[in-house]
Amino acid sequence: MKIINDVKFLIVGLGLIGGSYAQALTDLGYEVGAITRSQSSIDYAKENGLIAHGSTEISGDYVGKFDVIIFALYPKVLVEWIEENQSLFKSGALITDVTGVKGPIVYKIQDMLRDDVEFVGAHPMAGKEVYGVQNADKSIFKNANYIVTPTAKNTEKAIEATKQIGRLLGFKTVSELSPEEHDEMIGFLSQLTHCIAVSLMDCKESEKLVDYTGDSFRDLTRIAKINDSMWSELFLLNKKELLSQMDLFMSKFTELRNALEAEDTDKMREMMRISTERRRHFDKK
Amino acid sequence: MKIINDVKFLIVGLGLIGGSYAQALTDLGYEVGAITRSQSSIDYAKENGLIAHGSTEISGDYVGKFDVIIFALYPKVLVEWIEENQSLFKSGALITDVTGVKGPIVYKIQDMLRDDVEFVGAHPMAGKEVYGVQNADKSIFKNANYIVTPTAKNTEKAIEATKQIGRLLGFKTVSELSPEEHDEMIGFLSQLTHCIAVSLMDCKESEKLVDYTGDSFRDLTRIAKINDSMWSELFLLNKKELLSQMDLFMSKFTELRNALEAEDTDKMREMMRISTERRRHFDKK
Repeated sequence: MKIINDVKFLIVGLGLIGGSYAQALTDLGYEVGAITRSQSSIDYAKENGLIAHGSTEISGDYVGKFDVIIFALYPKVLVEWIEENQSLFKSGALITDVTGVKGPIVYKIQDMLRDDVEFVGAHPMAGKEVYGVQNADKSIFKNANYIVTPTAKNTEKAIEATKQIGRLLGFKTVSELSPEEHDEMIGFLSQLTHCIAVSLMDCKESEKLVDYTGDSFRDLTRIAKINDSMWSELFLLNKKELLSQMDLFMSKFTELRNALEAEDTDKMREMMRISTERRRHFDKK
Repeated sequence: MKIINDVKFLIVGLGLIGGSYAQALTDLGYEVGAITRSQSSIDYAKENGLIAHGSTEISGDYVGKFDVIIFALYPKVLVEWIEENQSLFKSGALITDVTGVKGPIVYKIQDMLRDDVEFVGAHPMAGKEVYGVQNADKSIFKNANYIVTPTAKNTEKAIEATKQIGRLLGFKTVSELSPEEHDEMIGFLSQLTHCIAVSLMDCKESEKLVDYTGDSFRDLTRIAKINDSMWSELFLLNKKELLSQMDLFMSKFTELRNALEAEDTDKMREMMRISTERRRHFDKK
């Protein structure tokens, strides 16, 4: 805690992630405020000790009090919020976010931002299949990864402070990627897997299949319960990268399909041996 | 236990599943014997109280003692075993199996089988990513499904006895499907999901991705660790059905891909809403 010390945190957007950030930071003794659209979310967060105070209004008096402002909004709303209200930020404030796509967000914000405040992108890879501040739970960060995505515009001090936030929140690993590396990685590891789960679940009226379902189908489709407004926005923001990951997957899947059609056992077994070997790396952690 | 009572069980093939069957039945007080290729598996099973006795030889003296014979072998070996040794079965014996594909196995065995013994197919939908009798563990049946696949050739008595075995083993649900219904269902729920996991894992050298991997990728690829000789055999046995399930999945996946390319948000969101709604059914159990 060399850099972050005695700072006041503002969370903009009190949903599951914003609420969980608030909980973790308040529990560490920081003063945490919130701006969010619904008064009932603020009331809930205050009553349950997640925040010290909050507002449904965006005012200079309130926003200007905070040293660190964390945006937990949908991507488009986030960019608009900063566009319209950046004059309210305290000079020297650190701004960060939780958005799942980085390239299109980070550069846009940095390009328009005042020179006396700094934005460093961050992506907490944590979540739940439930929504809202009522489900806030800082323990979702415990085994999760937190990725900071700085650019050439960022200072070492602000990058380090943003990483420090990830450590304070209790993430298992805190790492650094360029926005482009982040979007490629997330396209493959997260967005592609969600596309697979959604497509698989859409194949059949599967209600009657529940009685026969083993763990494999259940595991593969857990993430098919998906917030359609948020994820469609994230998919579109990462369109080029996600399309290329989807095409890569489709080409591998087609390889296996064609090996089966041709009864090419050697090819099928080779693909299975590769997957078995590679999957082992993921057991170590 | 109206039908099965004081019966002696023979397990042919002491691997993970055969060993777990043996453990469950021995623990209930039944006399369980085993035939398997390796003496060390028999030694292990005896020393650990999974079986009363066992043999690496296939002899009439031994096989003829048993009322129920459960085959836990790979599909081709199973059919060959019965072809070569069916003269050794005790008259009136009930024969069953654990094979993951039913159509090509059940009819082949029933067509060649002696008239005074009866074969009823069964599929215990349970497993682990480890192999061998040393990993035998009857608790894998506890939350799992057991499916009996009778044909017109089977008697009510033998069907009921086979179901009773599933209940004795401790399966959560015991149900009945035709071999054809079974193979369609398993093609979709199990084989297709394994094809997806293998293809996804084969896409990239993913070792460097471990640090960024969230639960979704981990869950989707858990079953990418796969016994390549067994699964390639099962895929080929169910080739027609699996190809049709793979094509169905690919068409849905392509629908989502093309919606993304066309930036058709409504279509993407509709697919996500369907998957979310359908996946809810799987939470209830």
